[in-house]
Amino acid sequence: MTILTSNPNAVNPSPPAPPCVVSTAISQVYPDRILVRGYNLVDVAEARSFGDVVYLLLRGELPGGQEGRLIEVMLSMMVEHSINAPSTHAARTVAACGSPVQTAVAAGVSAIGDYHGGAGEACARILQEALAVAPPDADLDALAIQVVDEARQEGQRLPGFGHRFHNPDPRAVRLLTLAQAWDIAGRHTALALALVDALAERTGRSLPLNIDGALAALISDMGFDWRLGKGFFIIARTAGLLAHVHEEMTTGKPFGFPPRAEVEYVGVGERGVEIED
Amino acid sequence: MTILTSNPNAVNPSPPAPPCVVSTAISQVYPDRILVRGYNLVDVAEARSFGDVVYLLLRGELPGGQEGRLIEVMLSMMVEHSINAPSTHAARTVAACGSPVQTAVAAGVSAIGDYHGGAGEACARILQEALAVAPPDADLDALAIQVVDEARQEGQRLPGFGHRFHNPDPRAVRLLTLAQAWDIAGRHTALALALVDALAERTGRSLPLNIDGALAALISDMGFDWRLGKGFFIIARTAGLLAHVHEEMTTGKPFGFPPRAEVEYVGVGERGVEIED
Amino acid sequence: MTILTSNPNAVNPSPPAPPCVVSTAISQVYPDRILVRGYNLVDVAEARSFGDVVYLLLRGELPGGQEGRLIEVMLSMMVEHSINAPSTHAARTVAACGSPVQTAVAAGVSAIGDYHGGAGEACARILQEALAVAPPDADLDALAIQVVDEARQEGQRLPGFGHRFHNPDPRAVRLLTLAQAWDIAGRHTALALALVDALAERTGRSLPLNIDGALAALISDMGFDWRLGKGFFIIARTAGLLAHVHEEMTTGKPFGFPPRAEVEYVGVGERGVEIED
Amino acid sequence: MTILTSNPNAVNPSPPAPPCVVSTAISQVYPDRILVRGYNLVDVAEARSFGDVVYLLLRGELPGGQEGRLIEVMLSMMVEHSINAPSTHAARTVAACGSPVQTAVAAGVSAIGDYHGGAGEACARILQEALAVAPPDADLDALAIQVVDEARQEGQRLPGFGHRFHNPDPRAVRLLTLAQAWDIAGRHTALALALVDALAERTGRSLPLNIDGALAALISDMGFDWRLGKGFFIIARTAGLLAHVHEEMTTGKPFGFPPRAEVEYVGVGERGVEIED
Repeated sequence: MTILTSNPNAVNPSPPAPPCVVSTAISQVYPDRILVRGYNLVDVAEARSFGDVVYLLLRGELPGGQEGRLIEVMLSMMVEHSINAPSTHAARTVAACGSPVQTAVAAGVSAIGDYHGGAGEACARILQEALAVAPPDADLDALAIQVVDEARQEGQRLPGFGHRFHNPDPRAVRLLTLAQAWDIAGRHTALALALVDALAERTGRSLPLNIDGALAALISDMGFDWRLGKGFFIIARTAGLLAHVHEEMTTGKPFGFPPRAEVEYVGVGERGVEIED
Repeated sequence: MTILTSNPNAVNPSPPAPPCVVSTAISQVYPDRILVRGYNLVDVAEARSFGDVVYLLLRGELPGGQEGRLIEVMLSMMVEHSINAPSTHAARTVAACGSPVQTAVAAGVSAIGDYHGGAGEACARILQEALAVAPPDADLDALAIQVVDEARQEGQRLPGFGHRFHNPDPRAVRLLTLAQAWDIAGRHTALALALVDALAERTGRSLPLNIDGALAALISDMGFDWRLGKGFFIIARTAGLLAHVHEEMTTGKPFGFPPRAEVEYVGVGERGVEIED
Repeated sequence: MTILTSNPNAVNPSPPAPPCVVSTAISQVYPDRILVRGYNLVDVAEARSFGDVVYLLLRGELPGGQEGRLIEVMLSMMVEHSINAPSTHAARTVAACGSPVQTAVAAGVSAIGDYHGGAGEACARILQEALAVAPPDADLDALAIQVVDEARQEGQRLPGFGHRFHNPDPRAVRLLTLAQAWDIAGRHTALALALVDALAERTGRSLPLNIDGALAALISDMGFDWRLGKGFFIIARTAGLLAHVHEEMTTGKPFGFPPRAEVEYVGVGERGVEIED
Repeated sequence: MTILTSNPNAVNPSPPAPPCVVSTAISQVYPDRILVRGYNLVDVAEARSFGDVVYLLLRGELPGGQEGRLIEVMLSMMVEHSINAPSTHAARTVAACGSPVQTAVAAGVSAIGDYHGGAGEACARILQEALAVAPPDADLDALAIQVVDEARQEGQRLPGFGHRFHNPDPRAVRLLTLAQAWDIAGRHTALALALVDALAERTGRSLPLNIDGALAALISDMGFDWRLGKGFFIIARTAGLLAHVHEEMTTGKPFGFPPRAEVEYVGVGERGVEIED
């Protein structure tokens, strides 16, 4: 019988109480008002649209033109894509297990990854990084060819172009039309459209901008950091996830989603296990 | 040495391939269009506000009055409440650990539980259930007294009234003003206001409607199921969570949030463990 | 043009810096050692099994008999139940979207709700609450009849009995055999078995204890709070979720899970939307 | 007034019902038994330890030596690190909001990212990739110098070495001692130890293997894919998260965690918003 003991002479300093201060540039909360980026939230909520408030929250300033309206159109277009969207599928699965609304919606949000709703962020990064180092008078057609060639050399597909189900993507077509009418489409959109031509030239395929690519171009032209790309999709899709979770909770059966699949087993065959006695 | 084996004569039916069909009343996806509640999403996104689209998604019809505008105001008011909101705290914590945007936002959403952002749902349930069984000409003051007395007998606090920091809650005041101006406030709002009086009478305390209580009354008057109460808060707060996650990712340090706390240990003292040798 | 301004005389107190102290009875962290419930974690990890450590963590003391071994058997039996388990399905869905391991496993864990892996907790609550108020020499057969009758009067099914696929549940059979051999099965297990007889008497159906019911009885006999019921399932299933997430990430295709379902639309038909011009 | 309508001649194919088949090599579920990697789960649960079952699940075979015991020690050592671990902090935050156990634990798991619990995976990748291309008789000291120099040229810190609080990490010291006694430490561990010397030579600092680095070396020597690195930490820490969530639910107050922080505002000053009237 051995007794392992801790060393009685061991260093045993209780860590001192640290200051508990956090820092943010987003908002201030006072008893009589909440300020977001300096504006009284109650005033700005009355005076401006939700699209304007989202712009304010993420850019730090209120928009001067139709940007808030364009954000609303963009959010509306991404709000819903039925049950085969994996985020929706995951949210309904969790709801059918008896977890609450917030848990089911959170599971759906967590499925918005690089391969589902993530192409907008990846595309915005490419557009922003390409234009950040290009001279102001750069030939965008040549730049597009260069971007396509670099991607092809690395064996990468350009995210934001083409769609396996919508061809062309009706959401992208309409969104770009509105952005041009409202004078929001700028250099990033021009580069995105040049990339469509460059892809056609290099691959012989027609790969128009999809909704992710249109989002990428337009949030970039509105001055948003590409790291917010998935975020716009998340804000929008949260509403659709909620609709599905509510439908599952009110019309589905416990443990009733997803439908049971046939499981094809591809592993090792049945075998026995030995025990000593 | 014993060998445990599975029974070779065991029942071994491979379950037959089931049909893989799911059902929804929310949307249809076709190559050239996405229909939400029967409307072409691209058209409705252009023609209507995001508030209208949220109403459509969750109610099944487009609103006939200012409901979409009220939803936008409501969402804007709930968009942000700084870092001490536990959902925001959780989201920044996860972001500082190096998990991606969708994961951090999902952790924030999952904190929107019964004690944080959940009072609106609980209050809407009370309002809807009380009015569902009351006659059309019920005296709402008497009904309110009855609701308060029942809650007090069960030792329950009524959710949606009073706020530990905002008194009155400036968001609720403005939201109710707009709802009345826009002819949306109805019987559920009247009952909610009667509950404020009944609480004052029974407890001697002034407990005005807070933002959760105002939300509860107004979504009920717009005809939404109380089970969507947390959901409206989730849609709104997702935007604020995103702003904080982005701020943490771009200005914070890895592993830099939350600030380290002093841990007061209240358990059993140090002791040794025996091992056999 | 109206300018809404915040009241310049508004109350504007910056909340004072609070102390940042949290409290726990679980562990202490020092530079040279980590104490869990008073024991040096490094010593206890060497001297004892993982099952003993789980017992220590959740009960506060090391077990005196075979409890740790029984916990290991219980965890092993719940580790995996293939892809149709909704938690597994959700985790693979999130993994296929390109979110990282922790996000996919978390989505799976969040599906362990009242209808999936939650029966053990609900059953443990019933067993513990029934025995907490029963006299020490209570007739368990009579108590069981009383529990069954109360549940039936309220239209509730008793959780933890019967299984739609396994009848009897081979995991429960073996687990109970071992618990009896190891002198762990006690009064809660006796009540659970009496409930099987009472269910047969009142319903005419054979509803043997399933794995959730066996877990409920045995964690109760080992002195664990029923609120830990889902938690034991979560610890176990996390390992299986990880195996599936890894398989999906290394053998699946991006966006390749779940298989696409046929969506049956049951909502309102296609219709046009008006816009003002 | 314009009416936007969908094109009545639009393509409207209802997608055909797809086969609903999924595939796995992990397990098979039959009415009378569950097979994991070919073994009857009930038999293997009785005959083997939980560590052996985890090994089986993730490697496909039962271990031939002390690997299962080493996995148990490793899991036990990572089970808990008190409240300042961000995963624990996030889980308690979500629990205090009134979300259920599975949701709180999931939020904690989702915090196990690249900067918290992720160093083991990153380190295992480096070890496995370096040895995969090295000849069998490679000089590990020279290889270690090469790995360190490459990391330094790219401005990267090597993950798995040094610890801001534990120096040396008592868990790593003990784990490596046991792995050597049990003949499990092999070439990956040798390379990891050579990296400690190489770091000392190139940086002049003593950066011993921490628990993540020890985990990386040992799971690699046991033949596990580096992509499982975070996963081992997740399995272990899930038990600790559960203990904290239970403590918060049973001893904490609603909305009582985390302690309120002082928020230092670093954004733009208060300003008014214009509205048209």
